[in-house]
This record gives sequence, structure tokens and C-alpha cells, in this order.
Amino acid sequence: MGMRRRTKGTVMGASSKGLVVNETQADARTRLLQASIEYFAGKGYHSTTTREIAIAANMSSAALYVHYKSKADVLFLICMTGLDELVCIMDEAADRSSGPLDEFRRVAYSFAIWHAEHSAMARVANYQIHALRPDHWTVVRGVRHSIEARVRGIIEAGMGDGVFHVRDSHMTTLSVISMGIDIARWYQADGSWTVDDVADHYRRMCLCMVGVV
Amino acid sequence: MGMRRRTKGTVMGASSKGLVVNETQADARTRLLQASIEYFAGKGYHSTTTREIAIAANMSSAALYVHYKSKADVLFLICMTGLDELVCIMDEAADRSSGPLDEFRRVAYSFAIWHAEHSAMARVANYQIHALRPDHWTVVRGVRHSIEARVRGIIEAGMGDGVFHVRDSHMTTLSVISMGIDIARWYQADGSWTVDDVADHYRRMCLCMVGVV
Repeated sequence: MGMRRRTKGTVMGASSKGLVVNETQADARTRLLQASIEYFAGKGYHSTTTREIAIAANMSSAALYVHYKSKADVLFLICMTGLDELVCIMDEAADRSSGPLDEFRRVAYSFAIWHAEHSAMARVANYQIHALRPDHWTVVRGVRHSIEARVRGIIEAGMGDGVFHVRDSHMTTLSVISMGIDIARWYQADGSWTVDDVADHYRRMCLCMVGVV
Repeated sequence: MGMRRRTKGTVMGASSKGLVVNETQADARTRLLQASIEYFAGKGYHSTTTREIAIAANMSSAALYVHYKSKADVLFLICMTGLDELVCIMDEAADRSSGPLDEFRRVAYSFAIWHAEHSAMARVANYQIHALRPDHWTVVRGVRHSIEARVRGIIEAGMGDGVFHVRDSHMTTLSVISMGIDIARWYQADGSWTVDDVADHYRRMCLCMVGVV
């Protein structure tokens, strides 16, 4: 667990420094991504300049283009990173579950936690999708549909087992996901509710919606 | 029910035409407001120029400033118009209801209808509030809190009557409102669900959340 070296050298000028350079590149990319998330979530994609992002990341004004091909690529990466994390939540819930009720409880809880803890990223991935390049949107839409299909799969499995009582699995899936996504809009880390309070309540509401009281 | 006259005269140059001028002014303001809603909802407040709005409203490039003091005022007006309509929904539900269950059902249904039918306005009033001027935000926040308090009042009245079974009325209120607001994000008028399908389902989910099955 050694100390991690941080250098100030630019990526372009530090190519002979081996591993340290790679660390710096990764750090730089992370800082740029984090700044992009904050700006896109706050001001919107279109009104954010690559210069603003670079300066917020404490880098020179054209730095974004050293690490990413374009602002559009950064937006795509943010969306895909968020969706990948949600897919991981699904996978983990599936691996550890003992049936649809348990899986649904796990997914609901983690889904809420993620949207509260990564609210800026979630806002970008849901409210800035109109700004995605058409080819990027095609990919993002596909992953979104697959997540929706997996949640619906759990609900329908629960219906099949007679544990869930749902009239319309498509609409109920949408309601569950919708209420989870909206957490990213209203949740405030400095508010009176912890992420666990929010996730616990959200899970309870979801269970009500699938007819488990 | 006479035909409504439409003139093309500018407001500044047509001040001697009496009522017709007023109609034209109102039309112009409405067109500008509608264009602002579409632009703010689509591109975001910050990246929309007053010129874009005016041209979308089929007017000269500086027209917004003839009818409104500033772009900030237009955003404030959009938010307040949306909130006023929601307050009217509450008033109407209260007037016509026969108790908290009936009132809750009416409010839920109309709340969903409004967010589906006015999805662009709702997206502006919820996703662009960070762009409001601080004094505007104070007013908007006050009305938002009053709407939230009224929904909570209905839920707590239902709890008092023993009709609703809710563990936390604050959080449940937030969930009900949150799921309603998010309709404006995902609802598509050209999709397979009508606004009535959506409102009917939303109402059912809300009833589940307050323990009415």
C-alpha cells in the first residue's frame, strides 16, 4: 500500500516516466471526467465548454483533447460508465439472491443508493441524453433497454412465483425505474436523510408497487 | 364565438389599434413563451439565446426584450405558470372530493396527466431550476413547498381516517411527487401509452404506496 506518486508533468511531455506517466494519465482522465460530470449536470452539455472542464480539472485549457477525442465522447463515456455500474448492481443482486423477491429487494436498494451517491452522473445520464450523438444514443438506448428488461424479468419471475401481484409488468417496471432515477434530481447529501434512509424507503415503495406489503 | 383577428404589426408600431394590439401582444408573448419552453427543455436555459427563441417564435431577433424584461424573467414565468397549474389541480381536487381517498385519487390522476401533457414545461420547471435567479428561486421554492405540504396533508388526513397506511408521510409524499415529476422525462406522446393509461397506472401505484390496494 505504498504512497501514490503524483507528478505535475503534462502527459505529452512525460512519456519517458513509465508507470508514473500512466498513473498521471489515469488521474488526468478521471479529473476531467469528474469535472465534466459536474458541469454537464449543472449547466448542461451544450453550454459547457471544453475549456471550462479543463480549468475545473486544474489543467490547461485544451487538456480535454489530449485525453479524449471530443466533448461528445466524454458525454458518451459518462452515460456508459453509469449504465455499466447499474448492470453490475443487477449482476451482483442476481448472484447473491435466493429468488425474485430477494433479488428485487437487492436491486431496488442498490439502485436507489447508486442514484443518490452518483446523483450528478445519473442526472447527466438521464437528462442530457438528447445531446448524445445519434450513434452513441443507439448504444446507450440498447443498454437502457437491457436494464429495463432485467428489472421486468425479476418482476415477472415474482409474478410467476405468485409472490408479486402486478397488473402490468411493463408499466410497473417503468414506475420502479422512474422513481429511482428521480432520486438523482432531489437527493441532497447535506439533507436530513441518509442514502440508506432513502434506499430503505424506496425499496419499501417498490415492494408496495409489486403488491408485497 | 367570432373569428379572432391576427395582425402582423409589431407591438411598438401598432399602439393605436386598441384591442387588436392587445391580442397581438398576447399572441406574441405566448409564442415566445412556447418557444422558450421548447428550447429550455431541449438545449437547457444557459445554452439558449434570446435570438434563438425569437426566431423560433417567428419574430425578429430582439423580440424577446420587447415582451419580457429578460431571459431570466421568462424562466421564472415558465416555472410559476407550471406551479400555478398544479395548485389549480389541487384546488379542484379539494373542491370536488369526498374525503382524503377521493382527493388523493383525483390529485394523483391530474398530476400525472399534467406532467405528461406539459412535459416540456415540467422538465424546465424541474430540471432548469438551478438557473433561476436567487430571488426567483426563493419564490419558486416556496410554491413547491406549499404543493408538497398539500399532498402530505391529504396523505396525513387519510392516515388519520385509517384509510391510508403509511410509515413516513414526508418520504411517501416525496415518492408520490417524484414519480409524477419523472413522467415528464420519459413520457412520449407518440408512444404506445395514452396520457390516460399513464395517469391510471400512476394513480394505482400511488394508492399502493399509501397502503390502499
